[in-house]
Amino acid sequence: MTGIRQQVDVSLGERSYTICVGTGLLSQTAATYMSRGEAVSHVVVISDANVTEHADVVAKSWQAAGVRVVRLSVPAGEGSKSIAEADRLWQEMLRCGTDRKSLVVAVGGGVVGDLAGFVAATFARGIRFLQIPTTLLAQVDSSVGGKTGINLPSAKNMVGAFWQPSFVLIDIDVLSTLPDREYRSGLAEVVKYGVILDADFFNYLEAHAAQLNARDPEVLCTIVARCCRLKADVVEQDERETSGLRAVLNYGHTFAHAFEAIGGYGQLLHGEAVSIGMVCASRLAASLGRIDAAMTQRQVTLLRQLDLPVVVPDLDHQLLCQAMAHDKKVEHGRLRFVLPTRMGHVELVADVNSDLVVNAMRDGN
Amino acid sequence: MTGIRQQVDVSLGERSYTICVGTGLLSQTAATYMSRGEAVSHVVVISDANVTEHADVVAKSWQAAGVRVVRLSVPAGEGSKSIAEADRLWQEMLRCGTDRKSLVVAVGGGVVGDLAGFVAATFARGIRFLQIPTTLLAQVDSSVGGKTGINLPSAKNMVGAFWQPSFVLIDIDVLSTLPDREYRSGLAEVVKYGVILDADFFNYLEAHAAQLNARDPEVLCTIVARCCRLKADVVEQDERETSGLRAVLNYGHTFAHAFEAIGGYGQLLHGEAVSIGMVCASRLAASLGRIDAAMTQRQVTLLRQLDLPVVVPDLDHQLLCQAMAHDKKVEHGRLRFVLPTRMGHVELVADVNSDLVVNAMRDGN
Repeated sequence: MTGIRQQVDVSLGERSYTICVGTGLLSQTAATYMSRGEAVSHVVVISDANVTEHADVVAKSWQAAGVRVVRLSVPAGEGSKSIAEADRLWQEMLRCGTDRKSLVVAVGGGVVGDLAGFVAATFARGIRFLQIPTTLLAQVDSSVGGKTGINLPSAKNMVGAFWQPSFVLIDIDVLSTLPDREYRSGLAEVVKYGVILDADFFNYLEAHAAQLNARDPEVLCTIVARCCRLKADVVEQDERETSGLRAVLNYGHTFAHAFEAIGGYGQLLHGEAVSIGMVCASRLAASLGRIDAAMTQRQVTLLRQLDLPVVVPDLDHQLLCQAMAHDKKVEHGRLRFVLPTRMGHVELVADVNSDLVVNAMRDGN
Repeated sequence: MTGIRQQVDVSLGERSYTICVGTGLLSQTAATYMSRGEAVSHVVVISDANVTEHADVVAKSWQAAGVRVVRLSVPAGEGSKSIAEADRLWQEMLRCGTDRKSLVVAVGGGVVGDLAGFVAATFARGIRFLQIPTTLLAQVDSSVGGKTGINLPSAKNMVGAFWQPSFVLIDIDVLSTLPDREYRSGLAEVVKYGVILDADFFNYLEAHAAQLNARDPEVLCTIVARCCRLKADVVEQDERETSGLRAVLNYGHTFAHAFEAIGGYGQLLHGEAVSIGMVCASRLAASLGRIDAAMTQRQVTLLRQLDLPVVVPDLDHQLLCQAMAHDKKVEHGRLRFVLPTRMGHVELVADVNSDLVVNAMRDGN
């Protein structure tokens, strides 16, 4: 199946790039990249142990095109987003003759993309970067925005750069082998785009829940391309997160980060936490009179159809509120939330009463 | 003496900034920075042991303005441009509450500027950066161009970012206490700007050699501002060193890097190596019939008046040629040189015969 293909153009001043979404693309990586007229003579493929087979296919496509390929692998998991791992990659790249004209190819989920992107952003003060996201979450989230980075021991994503890829290649086929929880975790972010930006898209998701559960390639191609387009519309107006516009993408995330931090990272996948967080944010909006209860119910129904959790985990509410107060997005200690006003539209709301926040986590589901 | 002041505006797309050159500026840092209408509530002053007194003055000016100041110091010397030192700074900055709105203030020479600039470029994906260069070389070279970075064990400046400062403050007064060799080393780069870009400026330098030797503040203010303007004209057309235009700034540097690499770093200061390198490049240009011998002689005379070395160190010519062949600017192994065609104008010349290169290092002085 190679007929399905969509293209999203991300326009960011001088640095614009294309996201190609389709099936059967991995084995066409070199040809697809070079058809844009850009010469490549050396690529560094960075991946982790979870996606070795996909990285093999990508590497072969470059080799077949006569391009010198170096393979680098990092351990799977968040622990690889470290200074030590970045250091190791920089030195390996130097050893294998990487220079300003080389191309870094990241094959993997968010961890590999963030790390490889950061290494590409900083090697020789920035070299080209081809992103091949292999999880649904990475496809709909990190393909757009240019956020790259690593963690400090006590702070996630604290060191990094905005570095736009020169091209993003999304092969829907890789989703067929994604573990179930990880796949569904990505769907939570998909639902988020509907709620915050696009009521029609939310309708489409409601109408295609069965196909989503069946991982139908045509539907997946449509929704991934739409999510990338929606995120691009936001990022194009606020590339460096300075105007506050980009904050809408954090719908459900203030709650989600607290669930992850207090529940322990790894208990809930990020998308699962976002799923519950969106329900809480929606209930909070209802308690402020911004929407009616039916709007929350629509989200709960769809999330449940997609087998995503909607029940707040049994955690200490005071600890959760404290965690929210430490969120990066907090300004001068005032709790701010992204809240819906209607399907497809959200607003940033400051100074929310913390009793209402607790109630939103308590309400029935 | 606070009357002397010049301003250079560097225009780089969205990121433009001002270089303020004058006397008595250090103690006015906070007021000068904030007079541009930018609020600051937290600054991180990064310096090294050589410039503690200057950093004290800068820190006091912020404290007097009611701004919270954190001081961080790195060991003096090239060894601080390391991943370990960057890591330490990132973690210290996190500990002291640095966030996206903080301002990094670099007080020092090239090492501090490159390191602090890189840390600013990558902390929270990039925060504001005020550069206060305290050596003549840093004032006329690293104030413009946005190059930041650290070294890998086997490669200088291999990890870094293009990150423009939000403001550059150059206090000429700091030059009065600069060690003699370091001061003269900076003058070599000043002479370079005349040769490559501005015959009038070269005339001015010839006419003011005595004042330069006496470190006359008014003359220094004039020449520093002019060098910044000249470099800005080049960088504005080739911010990321992609068009090749920026290569003109490397006049004398292919030879200089070889002298430094083979002679051992630290034997010759960078500017001293550049001084000799310019003489060699000029002789090479003459041997190719591009200029006459008088053009070389003018440079030799001025460099000697400024007490800069012009005699090639006693090093193995074959090793020097090998080192030049490994220069970053080499393309496909062909030796390329920036050579003058007349005073104030240079061209990039490829495929230079290596016998002529050796002769240029051999000729009488």
